[in-house]
Amino acid sequence: MRTEDTIIALATPSGMGAIAVMRISGKGAIESVDNVFKSVKSSKKLSQQKTHTIHLGHIMDNDRVVDEVLVSIFKGPNSYTGEDVVEISCHGSVYVQQEIIQLFLLKGIRLADPGEFTLRAFINGKLDLSQAEAVADLIASDSKASHQLAIQQMRGGFSNEIENLRQQLLNFASLIELELDFSEEDVEFANRDDFQKLITKITNVLKRLIESFAYGNVLKNGIPVAIIGEPNVGKSTLLNTLLNEEKAIVSDIAGTTRDAIEDELIIDGVAFRFIDTAGIRHTDDIVESIGIKKTFEKTQQAQVIIYLFDASVIRYLKDYEPLLKSIKKEINKIVEAYSDKKIIIVANKADLLSDNEIGKIQQYLNNPLFISAKDDLGISELKAQLTSLLNTGALSNNQTIVSNSRHFEALTKALAEINNIQKGINTNLSSDLIAIDIRQALHHLGEITGKVTTEDLLGNIFANFCIGK
Amino acid sequence: MRTEDTIIALATPSGMGAIAVMRISGKGAIESVDNVFKSVKSSKKLSQQKTHTIHLGHIMDNDRVVDEVLVSIFKGPNSYTGEDVVEISCHGSVYVQQEIIQLFLLKGIRLADPGEFTLRAFINGKLDLSQAEAVADLIASDSKASHQLAIQQMRGGFSNEIENLRQQLLNFASLIELELDFSEEDVEFANRDDFQKLITKITNVLKRLIESFAYGNVLKNGIPVAIIGEPNVGKSTLLNTLLNEEKAIVSDIAGTTRDAIEDELIIDGVAFRFIDTAGIRHTDDIVESIGIKKTFEKTQQAQVIIYLFDASVIRYLKDYEPLLKSIKKEINKIVEAYSDKKIIIVANKADLLSDNEIGKIQQYLNNPLFISAKDDLGISELKAQLTSLLNTGALSNNQTIVSNSRHFEALTKALAEINNIQKGINTNLSSDLIAIDIRQALHHLGEITGKVTTEDLLGNIFANFCIGK
Repeated sequence: MRTEDTIIALATPSGMGAIAVMRISGKGAIESVDNVFKSVKSSKKLSQQKTHTIHLGHIMDNDRVVDEVLVSIFKGPNSYTGEDVVEISCHGSVYVQQEIIQLFLLKGIRLADPGEFTLRAFINGKLDLSQAEAVADLIASDSKASHQLAIQQMRGGFSNEIENLRQQLLNFASLIELELDFSEEDVEFANRDDFQKLITKITNVLKRLIESFAYGNVLKNGIPVAIIGEPNVGKSTLLNTLLNEEKAIVSDIAGTTRDAIEDELIIDGVAFRFIDTAGIRHTDDIVESIGIKKTFEKTQQAQVIIYLFDASVIRYLKDYEPLLKSIKKEINKIVEAYSDKKIIIVANKADLLSDNEIGKIQQYLNNPLFISAKDDLGISELKAQLTSLLNTGALSNNQTIVSNSRHFEALTKALAEINNIQKGINTNLSSDLIAIDIRQALHHLGEITGKVTTEDLLGNIFANFCIGK
Repeated sequence: MRTEDTIIALATPSGMGAIAVMRISGKGAIESVDNVFKSVKSSKKLSQQKTHTIHLGHIMDNDRVVDEVLVSIFKGPNSYTGEDVVEISCHGSVYVQQEIIQLFLLKGIRLADPGEFTLRAFINGKLDLSQAEAVADLIASDSKASHQLAIQQMRGGFSNEIENLRQQLLNFASLIELELDFSEEDVEFANRDDFQKLITKITNVLKRLIESFAYGNVLKNGIPVAIIGEPNVGKSTLLNTLLNEEKAIVSDIAGTTRDAIEDELIIDGVAFRFIDTAGIRHTDDIVESIGIKKTFEKTQQAQVIIYLFDASVIRYLKDYEPLLKSIKKEINKIVEAYSDKKIIIVANKADLLSDNEIGKIQQYLNNPLFISAKDDLGISELKAQLTSLLNTGALSNNQTIVSNSRHFEALTKALAEINNIQKGINTNLSSDLIAIDIRQALHHLGEITGKVTTEDLLGNIFANFCIGK
């Protein structure tokens, strides 16, 4: 990693805007701007100015004025990266942005790689690895839930918890390893009771964190939902009703307009992603049965299933029992096939039914949710059922929730090693062997906060950042 | 115009990026941020901090952290708008941008209208109207030429020249009007020789500025070019060759990538816009003749015409004279039809010709430009011919060039009044009548710099700005 270079990148979204901001970081960053900057008010050089001050002036390409800009100075270590940093706020023309960046490239400053500013912040100890990852999550956040997860992680609550446990475990590791040096003398530096307590504590914390991932992952990435049912029961109408409402809700603050994602619905700050499934119908047609197989596979990806049926058919039937029986049979099949999923049974086209007919269905099918997708009836109840499936309490109680699959993996590996340590303790395994398991556990815990890293790991993490961050 | 409100807008391009910047301006701007900002390092309020300083902290929605941000403080009148201004630099998630703006909207700050920050800068005397217009031009600039025009105008050279003449004329107006008050005493406060000199000077300056518009307008908006010629002579191939080269040149600085505009070619910093025309062919077919009429109408919009013919046909002809004669006839017709335009005669498919054949065409058709659009031969010569049609000297000599059609219109009206004044002088018109013409001329000159404005005029100008500027 080339951290000796001075780097530049556009930090604001690409395209035309009122202003754009370029960020320069590294040794000589301030001096490099001094070379092309003519202050309007001060005769002092930027490098003589105080940190955290802003200066109006012109970026000059020799005698040619490239732009009138504001230059912000941050002197290391009091900066985002920990190095000297300059931010240039220029007029937001794409042409001007390119001209200014090109000017600095010609002066020997190089373009930053994706995430390189944050990578430097990590290397210089401004934030740990899990906090650095939270920066990318924060930028990508698109719902209240994913935003809160990222903010929580960025503020370091999670890292502190892990790092604290790691430190305690590290102390024991040192003591136990010290015992090994004195093994002939049969001393015991590490209090075995305290050690057992720590292992129990770590086990509990890791289990809780690992369990939180199932929840954190869906909060971050959205909860996959499948609407299933026979053709023409109103699946598309229901989806459109849900999404159109969303589109109307999506804030239209000028300039920040966010396109509603085609199949994503945000309810109470949590994203629900709708999986596109074809209708299910019992058929002997091979082509259709392939389609149905696919539908089942796709439905398996869902965490929530909405089973939709057309309740209005009951009106035409003298004897409604066979119909309701067959629906009940279908529901039972679905409950069985998707036993690990939350299932919501929804009776559509309820606007066409009499109270009497509704009563019959209620009785027979154990209180399904009655809606009319077309007339927007019962939709808010459906939304309430969707959100009630989630225990958002954990999020609002500021409990630590793991939402990063890399952390989940490291935690799982750490727990396996902790379990090995516990087994070792239980079976009176010799200290030198337990010490090996402790080192492994320390390694995996250290991976989360970045106490243990490899260049590959860092490369993978920061490659997913945007340029300029 | 509601300049008492405090306003907020996103100042950076919409969408996701490393950072986004919101700008707040108006009375109580700094205090309003104080209400939701928790500094990391300082216990001082932002309103107690010095102007042009930057502060790290958190934007809080009650107890909830919305984001970690940098806040820049500008105390009026030392700010862009002349009012108190705060810029909040947050993480570039669209969700975060919306949350922060919404937080301020709930506190009674309103969304800024397009260009409202610059409008306030104008109202508060930070820049004149022509400079304000240059800000929008600068942001929209996409070539070296349009960029330089905007920078020149923003730096005020043009306004100064106009304002200076207006002041001198205003002095004479006052003196002449004073004479009218003393009309019974037959005094002459205004020296008539000096007045004549000033009118001559103004006439010359206005004429020069008005003339510069033809040039300034094309530099700013691009030069319209039509490639015409019979079907299958290679018009599309030529256009693609020109544009593909451009696409390869378009800088690919990460994050600033600018899409090459489909029909725009930038040569030596000047934009050429290609007008889409169908082939021209002499025909009796009514449908086709309608198409040809359209082609002629479109070609009339061009300032430069490239007439392309397929020179390779000569190879198949024993007697080439009839062909060359007919081409010559066609060229003459075009020269006649478009006498006000620059015309470049281009012989395509020259790669298929022998030196002998080229010699014959040269002789017969007065040295056309030989190219092969397919093989990229002669293309740089064609580009050189396109740019040679422009006298870019004026731009590099820093001469004032008018590129704004509103200014052009005001200058033209001012010149008409100045001519009236001159006529009045020549015919010994009475001072009270001349005074009326002077007031008219002052009015039109004042419109350029904004000494004279109406709310409608300002509304029109600033409505074309982007939000956040």
